[in-house]
Amino acid sequence: MAEKRYLMAPGPTPVPPEVLAAGAQPIIHHRGPDFRELMLRCLERLRAVCRTENDVLLFTASGSGAFESAVANLVSPGDRVLAVTAGAFGDRWAKLAQAYRADVHELRYAWGETPRADDVRARAEETGAEVVFVVHSETSTGVVADVEAIARASRDAGAMPVIDAVSSLGAVPLETDAWGLDVVVSGSQKALMCPPGLSVVTVAPAAWERAERSTSPRFYFDWARLHASLETGTTPFTPAVSLVAALDTALGMLLEEGLEHAFRRHAALGRACREGAKAMGLELFSPDEDRSAVVTAILTPAGVDAREVVLALRERFGITVAGGHDELAPRLFRIGHIGHYDVFDITTALAAVESLLVEQGADVDPGVAVARALDAYRDAVHV
Amino acid sequence: MAEKRYLMAPGPTPVPPEVLAAGAQPIIHHRGPDFRELMLRCLERLRAVCRTENDVLLFTASGSGAFESAVANLVSPGDRVLAVTAGAFGDRWAKLAQAYRADVHELRYAWGETPRADDVRARAEETGAEVVFVVHSETSTGVVADVEAIARASRDAGAMPVIDAVSSLGAVPLETDAWGLDVVVSGSQKALMCPPGLSVVTVAPAAWERAERSTSPRFYFDWARLHASLETGTTPFTPAVSLVAALDTALGMLLEEGLEHAFRRHAALGRACREGAKAMGLELFSPDEDRSAVVTAILTPAGVDAREVVLALRERFGITVAGGHDELAPRLFRIGHIGHYDVFDITTALAAVESLLVEQGADVDPGVAVARALDAYRDAVHV
Repeated sequence: MAEKRYLMAPGPTPVPPEVLAAGAQPIIHHRGPDFRELMLRCLERLRAVCRTENDVLLFTASGSGAFESAVANLVSPGDRVLAVTAGAFGDRWAKLAQAYRADVHELRYAWGETPRADDVRARAEETGAEVVFVVHSETSTGVVADVEAIARASRDAGAMPVIDAVSSLGAVPLETDAWGLDVVVSGSQKALMCPPGLSVVTVAPAAWERAERSTSPRFYFDWARLHASLETGTTPFTPAVSLVAALDTALGMLLEEGLEHAFRRHAALGRACREGAKAMGLELFSPDEDRSAVVTAILTPAGVDAREVVLALRERFGITVAGGHDELAPRLFRIGHIGHYDVFDITTALAAVESLLVEQGADVDPGVAVARALDAYRDAVHV
Repeated sequence: MAEKRYLMAPGPTPVPPEVLAAGAQPIIHHRGPDFRELMLRCLERLRAVCRTENDVLLFTASGSGAFESAVANLVSPGDRVLAVTAGAFGDRWAKLAQAYRADVHELRYAWGETPRADDVRARAEETGAEVVFVVHSETSTGVVADVEAIARASRDAGAMPVIDAVSSLGAVPLETDAWGLDVVVSGSQKALMCPPGLSVVTVAPAAWERAERSTSPRFYFDWARLHASLETGTTPFTPAVSLVAALDTALGMLLEEGLEHAFRRHAALGRACREGAKAMGLELFSPDEDRSAVVTAILTPAGVDAREVVLALRERFGITVAGGHDELAPRLFRIGHIGHYDVFDITTALAAVESLLVEQGADVDPGVAVARALDAYRDAVHV
């Protein structure tokens, strides 16, 4: 197949050629000085991206592995925890905490709803939760929560906020220290523009203290075992050295762009995507607001099965977008606009969707989505 | 630094350019048909390399993560287990089982000794162990154990053998099914010629049954959660897609060479390395036998600190070998000859060591090590 491919799913995301090349360098030994220098620089860059002075631990594992490390290190059997869930990834936190036999309470919203800080405060107080798990960007719905307010509400209720920032870190503002986020979990394969396989946890002093008390069994994901790597750059287990080299290069690119610029770019991409979709007469499932700038979930018109749109985009145009989960699968598709992405990726996605809709006999003025998206992008970046 | 680098540590090992290139391809989506095809082929190739019809699970994690999966899925708190340990990796199994609160018994040898099947049988019977953890190739000492006999002894005693084949798989014979190995654990970064970051577990039916009864908490490393991937090629968590592409290419190369040929090549490389070292008057720490063909541990002459040899090889010649662990550090260095490696890598390592020894005033006939290594290699491959 000579066809050109476009990866527009909300993760893994397209990786810049420079980053792929960095990951294809000859393998270096993980206990040698070359790797130590690389690892320490990478951790420093992660601290900058997370905007924290807290310790940052890097795992060779996908984001769910870093999730699990947060549960295993913070939660002992019987501990009361609150999982805020409004989508697939919130559900994963609840399942994880159940696997570790926590006393798991849920603050459950319909998929697509935006969690509210007041609800979190009330539910954390009512349940006596010691830890609150919150998803920043719920990739399954496109909702980005107000983590600053939710973290404050958690602390007000005496609970430690643990934030899933897998798809948000580097795309939308996240202030680990300024917002008092005790633990932030993220992955390499979203806005950090790196292949999947690495994940990150930031650990505040209070979280280190809690980890000392956790009785849950753990080894590979044991935070304490990784602590020495913060000073020495040497990990207890062989790390994915080629992915660390890739991540280091990608973080360098992100910091060179500047985080504030990256946040504005993602907000503008999100707005362009939403305006273009609306211009075609499509209804949004994800919120029509600047904060939800990671992935746009779009409902298909009545009578058009979203699964067929996803399939046709891939088979006919080489474009990979994501479908909806479970019962949402026939109703919506999701365009990720995360990381190594610009407005012409948005117009490509919209043009392809338009093309399919016109074929289906939809009443769409050809070109309108692309034109509107470009306008919206220009407006957004010039604001 | 324009200097050429040589990676001769016992893992991570040099990765062939074709494999690096495969890992640098544009990222594909882990739920699309391209990845499913890749994953299923990769699992099939792993089955061929492990010589098994058992299920093969692939984790995005280093080898210790796959170790942990074996413990978490097979061992409940209080279960009696036996860890056979004669080096750093045997110790790791014991620590892992302790972290999961097993009733851990040890069959402990001095580092460098070769575990004996009769000892395993006796100790397993005496302790009533339900699971025996055995390291096939103990990378810290160079010893390769007779896993066929040890597994039989374990089964005779009513215990399930779990084999750590991280540095042996693809280098020395391992017959998962013919030897009745219920669980085999390995990693991508040794003889499989792939960057680190992926690890493998083979699971026999009896091990699946045991996993159903395990009460240890687990999520990311839960075997059952990965079971569906065997049929669908779809993993529950985002896998390291670029490493899977690299591994698939590397396994294709290994199978094209042929496993038997790869085993003969490693045996010949080991013999060349040992004969060359002896020709320089050096004493071996690892056994002088064909089976121990993964890494050669060499003692430095009296008065020569092995740590300085390791440092000088790296700083002056760009050659990375491994030092000894803990109290062995001043006494020995280790040359890995695993995976993408031929006899001229052996002669390079020996020539560099010779060069250092001559400088130190050692009584070495220049060139003798290289000549002897080439002779030994020719003899070994022609047998």
